[in-house]
Amino acid sequence: MVTAASTLVRGVLEEYGALARTALRAYLRPPEPRNEIYDLVSDYPQRGGRSLRASMCIASARAFGAPVEDAVNSAVALELMHNAFLIHDDVEDESEERRGRPTMHKIHGVPIAINVGDALTVLSLRPLIQNRARLGPRIAMRVLEETERMARETVEGQAIELSWRHDNAVDLGEADYLRMILKKTCWYTTIYPCRVGALIGTRDGVELDRYLRFGFFLGAAFQIQDDLLNLLGDETLYGKELNGDIWEGKRTIMLIRLFGVCEPEERLELRRIFGLERGQRTRENVRWVRELMEHYGCTEYTRDLAHGLAGAAMHEFGLAFPGVPDSRDKRFLEALATWVIERA
Amino acid sequence: MVTAASTLVRGVLEEYGALARTALRAYLRPPEPRNEIYDLVSDYPQRGGRSLRASMCIASARAFGAPVEDAVNSAVALELMHNAFLIHDDVEDESEERRGRPTMHKIHGVPIAINVGDALTVLSLRPLIQNRARLGPRIAMRVLEETERMARETVEGQAIELSWRHDNAVDLGEADYLRMILKKTCWYTTIYPCRVGALIGTRDGVELDRYLRFGFFLGAAFQIQDDLLNLLGDETLYGKELNGDIWEGKRTIMLIRLFGVCEPEERLELRRIFGLERGQRTRENVRWVRELMEHYGCTEYTRDLAHGLAGAAMHEFGLAFPGVPDSRDKRFLEALATWVIERA
Repeated sequence: MVTAASTLVRGVLEEYGALARTALRAYLRPPEPRNEIYDLVSDYPQRGGRSLRASMCIASARAFGAPVEDAVNSAVALELMHNAFLIHDDVEDESEERRGRPTMHKIHGVPIAINVGDALTVLSLRPLIQNRARLGPRIAMRVLEETERMARETVEGQAIELSWRHDNAVDLGEADYLRMILKKTCWYTTIYPCRVGALIGTRDGVELDRYLRFGFFLGAAFQIQDDLLNLLGDETLYGKELNGDIWEGKRTIMLIRLFGVCEPEERLELRRIFGLERGQRTRENVRWVRELMEHYGCTEYTRDLAHGLAGAAMHEFGLAFPGVPDSRDKRFLEALATWVIERA
Repeated sequence: MVTAASTLVRGVLEEYGALARTALRAYLRPPEPRNEIYDLVSDYPQRGGRSLRASMCIASARAFGAPVEDAVNSAVALELMHNAFLIHDDVEDESEERRGRPTMHKIHGVPIAINVGDALTVLSLRPLIQNRARLGPRIAMRVLEETERMARETVEGQAIELSWRHDNAVDLGEADYLRMILKKTCWYTTIYPCRVGALIGTRDGVELDRYLRFGFFLGAAFQIQDDLLNLLGDETLYGKELNGDIWEGKRTIMLIRLFGVCEPEERLELRRIFGLERGQRTRENVRWVRELMEHYGCTEYTRDLAHGLAGAAMHEFGLAFPGVPDSRDKRFLEALATWVIERA
């Protein structure tokens, strides 16, 4: 479906994404000639991706009147961290594909993949330090403070999800799931870009907690749509193996719903299947889970939830950016709430 | 052997180590109640350790007249990062023991261990940001800049070492090894603590590159002594499995020397053994390598190298701290060059 909102979002993502990717390249070049790591840190960033987070950060700063140049370092740092998260997530989830190619650890092994993720985290510090030249040490420190909070929320969210799999948790509800993705996804995907953009755009002149609700609803709709695409998407467009979440034993909202509504004996079998190591789950197991989700309407339930969250994001948008004059950037941020559930 | 130098070093390590560990605890407490990660981030730090790096950082600042309180946040950040490195190193090296207990990934699995390492990295940002309150934003940003450099050197060094194992490198020389440990070990163990201490103590009033040579020689002697203890040490004191480096296929200086001096057919067999996966190397393989090292005098060679480096560190000390008045802190830093090869 192509709506005016989607067209606007795609245009801004292309424009700001290109800016961010150009700026990013400078940070991936070796500060000294020939170290092994610099061939590898640019792999994931070069595979493409929408640069959603970088674009939101730039748009949020511009909506408050700041030039792109004020926000681009922070946007680049976020993209570097995002790629660091992806590499470590892929190891942790034993994922096989990322953006249409084998994951880092599938190509180079787990030890090198862990270190490349660490390298991207370290490299993300450089643009944040360089913020000083343009924004001064006080604002640069404030951005770092926001970054520390965001990264902390992310590892906390990751810890929740990993513990669910480690303990084969089956008694989870919608609230548990939403709290987990608030931390694991929303903080770095949507909340932080709005906060840091506004912080830079207003020179620390606005209460940043007002972006929590908009960012949460938007980010949650985004994550849930992502879970849906993992089941229903076009593999070429999606860039990961379909049903990968089931293979990996992930506690998606579809699975949590399924555990909640299925019959006791189905529940036992689900528990057994999700208690297996990844390598032990069979194609037959995955197909059975997939069919049971269909049978119990888990994808419809999930689609409704994503729509509800996107609607809530639209409502919250007005409260998050009150008094900010109309602009393409502001309209882009608002349109994300529509785009997030339309995207394929 | 107990010398005056060792007694002084032990006394300062106990005093500053206790200070750093107390300050550290505040950063390991959950900022919000009950998140899974906070039970795990304190595991490695609680296992003890000498706090060598934190103590050097505090001593270097105090040698320039700054109070402990000026340096303790930076010292704590370094300890947090050190523990993050250890957890990821242990996964990357498939190590089984750390400080006398099973490694993090042996207890909780690789995914959780990776995330706990990431969490410790994130937590290390907090004390660096809190530097602002006492040192002001300008000096706090300078410490961050030093931290970015140090962390970058460390991942680059780790990349070199991992690539050697990944490619089963056998044509390495002493210079390759020293360059690798300059980055992997010396930067964060000895160079950074001197630099950041001096930066804080002089309020960015001294050229920091003068600590490169002292830090390199001292850190290299430290790392090489560590490699020796891995072969010859007392397992209870050492806290890791003996011969672990051989089991893990690490390119230690003993191994590099052995490759350089052994007969061609021994070289082929060494190459075969070190090309195996960790799990495939047998007890017999490890014993044979160990005996060949003895046969070719690799440990004596290594001990001589450590002594030479420690001697060079003593010489460089005078050039690194010129005009700094005599104090217990200054004598501690100097005595480290003796302690580093005396420690068991």
